Amino acid sequence: MHTEAPTPLYLQLADRIEEMISHGMFRPGDRIPSVRTTSTQHQVSVSTVLQAYTLLEDRRLIEARPKSGYYVRSPHTAYASTLQTPAVSRRIPPAKSLSRFAPLMELVHDVVNPDFVRMGGAHPSPEVLPGRKLSRLMASLARQQNFSTISCDPAPGCQRFRTELSRRSLDWGCYLPPDDFVVTNGATEALYLALSAVAKPGETVIIESPTHYGVLNIMSQLGLKALAVPASPREGLDLQATRTVLQRQRVSAIVVVPNFCNPLGSCMPEVNRAALVQMAAEHEVPIIEDDVYGDLHFEGERPRCLKALDRTGSVLLCGSFSKTLAPGYRVGYISAGNFQDRVIQTKTAMNFCNAPLMALTVAEFLRNGGYEHHLRSLRRTFREQLILMREALAQAMPQRVKITDPQGGFVLWVELPQQVDALALFHEARKRHISIAPGHLFCPAGEYRHHMRISCGHLWSDRVGEAVKTLGQLVHAAL
Amino acid sequence: MHTEAPTPLYLQLADRIEEMISHGMFRPGDRIPSVRTTSTQHQVSVSTVLQAYTLLEDRRLIEARPKSGYYVRSPHTAYASTLQTPAVSRRIPPAKSLSRFAPLMELVHDVVNPDFVRMGGAHPSPEVLPGRKLSRLMASLARQQNFSTISCDPAPGCQRFRTELSRRSLDWGCYLPPDDFVVTNGATEALYLALSAVAKPGETVIIESPTHYGVLNIMSQLGLKALAVPASPREGLDLQATRTVLQRQRVSAIVVVPNFCNPLGSCMPEVNRAALVQMAAEHEVPIIEDDVYGDLHFEGERPRCLKALDRTGSVLLCGSFSKTLAPGYRVGYISAGNFQDRVIQTKTAMNFCNAPLMALTVAEFLRNGGYEHHLRSLRRTFREQLILMREALAQAMPQRVKITDPQGGFVLWVELPQQVDALALFHEARKRHISIAPGHLFCPAGEYRHHMRISCGHLWSDRVGEAVKTLGQLVHAAL
Repeated sequence: MHTEAPTPLYLQLADRIEEMISHGMFRPGDRIPSVRTTSTQHQVSVSTVLQAYTLLEDRRLIEARPKSGYYVRSPHTAYASTLQTPAVSRRIPPAKSLSRFAPLMELVHDVVNPDFVRMGGAHPSPEVLPGRKLSRLMASLARQQNFSTISCDPAPGCQRFRTELSRRSLDWGCYLPPDDFVVTNGATEALYLALSAVAKPGETVIIESPTHYGVLNIMSQLGLKALAVPASPREGLDLQATRTVLQRQRVSAIVVVPNFCNPLGSCMPEVNRAALVQMAAEHEVPIIEDDVYGDLHFEGERPRCLKALDRTGSVLLCGSFSKTLAPGYRVGYISAGNFQDRVIQTKTAMNFCNAPLMALTVAEFLRNGGYEHHLRSLRRTFREQLILMREALAQAMPQRVKITDPQGGFVLWVELPQQVDALALFHEARKRHISIAPGHLFCPAGEYRHHMRISCGHLWSDRVGEAVKTLGQLVHAAL
Repeated sequence: MHTEAPTPLYLQLADRIEEMISHGMFRPGDRIPSVRTTSTQHQVSVSTVLQAYTLLEDRRLIEARPKSGYYVRSPHTAYASTLQTPAVSRRIPPAKSLSRFAPLMELVHDVVNPDFVRMGGAHPSPEVLPGRKLSRLMASLARQQNFSTISCDPAPGCQRFRTELSRRSLDWGCYLPPDDFVVTNGATEALYLALSAVAKPGETVIIESPTHYGVLNIMSQLGLKALAVPASPREGLDLQATRTVLQRQRVSAIVVVPNFCNPLGSCMPEVNRAALVQMAAEHEVPIIEDDVYGDLHFEGERPRCLKALDRTGSVLLCGSFSKTLAPGYRVGYISAGNFQDRVIQTKTAMNFCNAPLMALTVAEFLRNGGYEHHLRSLRRTFREQLILMREALAQAMPQRVKITDPQGGFVLWVELPQQVDALALFHEARKRHISIAPGHLFCPAGEYRHHMRISCGHLWSDRVGEAVKTLGQLVHAAL
């Protein structure tokens, strides 16, 4: 170190470490040397190192993890940091009927078609899931518990699974006893049951804009109106806008994905969570919380659920193991608070119960299968996948394109140049066996016509790389 | 034979055969000797034997089966033959809202509780089902097709299962290609999807009176009104009354169980089926056909489906393998004709898809598991169960009690003396760990307050016998 140089020591140190990161000596997720080690290695004081590390944190290059040290963050491209969020205007649109909203069935089928490069649906690839282990557990359970696995297990459903959920609820920041849960056919059915319980046809529900089309499909089926409140990739649902809406008009519920929301990837700040729960309670509006991505955080602790802040029984928590274990097992759950009885009645009427064996298998995996170990590897995989995909998209697309930088989950939200019609792009890409999710599916009135969601649930390969290049060519051609 | 006696020969022969049947030499379901054999054995002419057999048919002791011969019918007790049917009055009630109709959750849970004598729910006992074979097939499929069983298989769902359904549809009197089916979470979900597709909240649907509470639960959830048209244990839905209703008012659908309807056990005559399908087509009213008991006929050929007579695509056929293979697998189907796209959309929105492994396992069983062999034994079992239960009820209950005599399925409908409140009986029986289904659950306005449905799905045992005696004592005590 040049102790005589005009540049302060901590700045020189910071620049040097930034250089090491940019040259790949430290890669995203790596722990950098401790303050004490760096102090010794570079012969500077501990406080100088601390100043340098603080600066690198401000530059969003590294981050501190409590009791663990400093780690290299994933790269933020210029695209992400300049991403304009739709929330800026804070314009509150009128509630819209979803009577014309329908599932895009080509998309539904392409995302499970192995002939396609599948970036359209938010499904994890079977290659990253513990399929063999699940199959073994299932075979053994079916053999041992033959009678109970061919018999019905009416709602609330599989006791052992609900017991495991109860244990896991401690990680969500609360304790929910087993009887607070109802087993559902995936989180989709949980959301369907939640919306059925709190809203009647014709009533209005607040959703995030953009939000995933699963929710919009359900609301269309149930004859509900959607009031799409702006959300940002950094903080999720705009609380100021939500407050304004609640003051102005009667709504039956707020549907929100606080943890790595689909498609934006936002993680709602803790302070916003408390404010939202309180605001909803004041207006006596139930919150439907979709937490399917909560286990897929890249850093630190698992984010809490809104349910952990619920004091009035008016948060309906929905989740599943479709993003982390087996989408095809269709094992989801709802903890519906005050609406529990109504949810059980609807579930009983609708399809009586789920196949008990699937929930039993997931329960066994949660208990003895090494779920936490699996999650650690899955989070690493998805994080890498997102990094690779962002880089590839940044290279293939025009410079104006903006891409989110989520800290959990496995989807990216891409804002294309305004001239690009994402639905036309979807159809062009389809002809080339590439599946993407066009933006107009993510809101009731088709606002996001030049946006697309890219799922990174399937493993990166040359084929995926080629597909991204092709997408880039199609976008360039549309300009 | 006394050729000189004043009694005609054919009458002597008929009496003698009746005696043999009553002494158990020929048992229900047995084939009796052919006309030619009997002619030789008794040294009478072929025409005398034919006259005797015709008489025995009139006495409802035997029945002719085309190209097969004559068979002993199941016994009809005095109770059954005098059963007054609720259809006699032909009174057509006004449509009723089902907003207050809710599942009787105690019943739902008691019927899967092994501590109970379970005569309440229409579930077959695991003891009569091929659970081990299914588990083995499933384990092998999960191992071989690991990736596809943990992945989603969106609606219409499992191709192999739909192919097997298509093959089986030949037995139903029609040919439905695989793409005409959607896989559902049991027949309950099929009915939910069917009713969602054809009727909006507030609209009116014709149902049979009595009908099973599954349908009423669904209609309550969907906000539909029920117009309960009388049905009889012999012929099912009263066609004259149905015609009158259709002429008078607009209805959105007719829900009917033509094959061994639950709870009456009726099998709709072929001529009525044709008339009903034609009548509905003339009035442009879709028919929702629930065929879960079709494979459980005791005699002759499998009865056809209404769908076989459908020329306009307006019959929505619903079924499952919950009554014959595994209730807990939740493998059902719908073939929705003109409403197919709408059903797929709703299914996709509601819970995206079913666990593919369950349908795959049923498909494999249908293809290579010996389903027909299993059905033959299951039909025999249920027939014997019904005979034992009818006898036990007849002994235990007051003489005025009337009991149906179904020729398929495994439920009995029992009319108790008018003073008996079946809901009170349900609660009294519950205290003694006996589960029955009280009659008021089988209609929208609670008409059948002194009726109950008794399921014979669980194997006869001394414990069941004791429970029936206890029920009898409770009924006597209520007089």
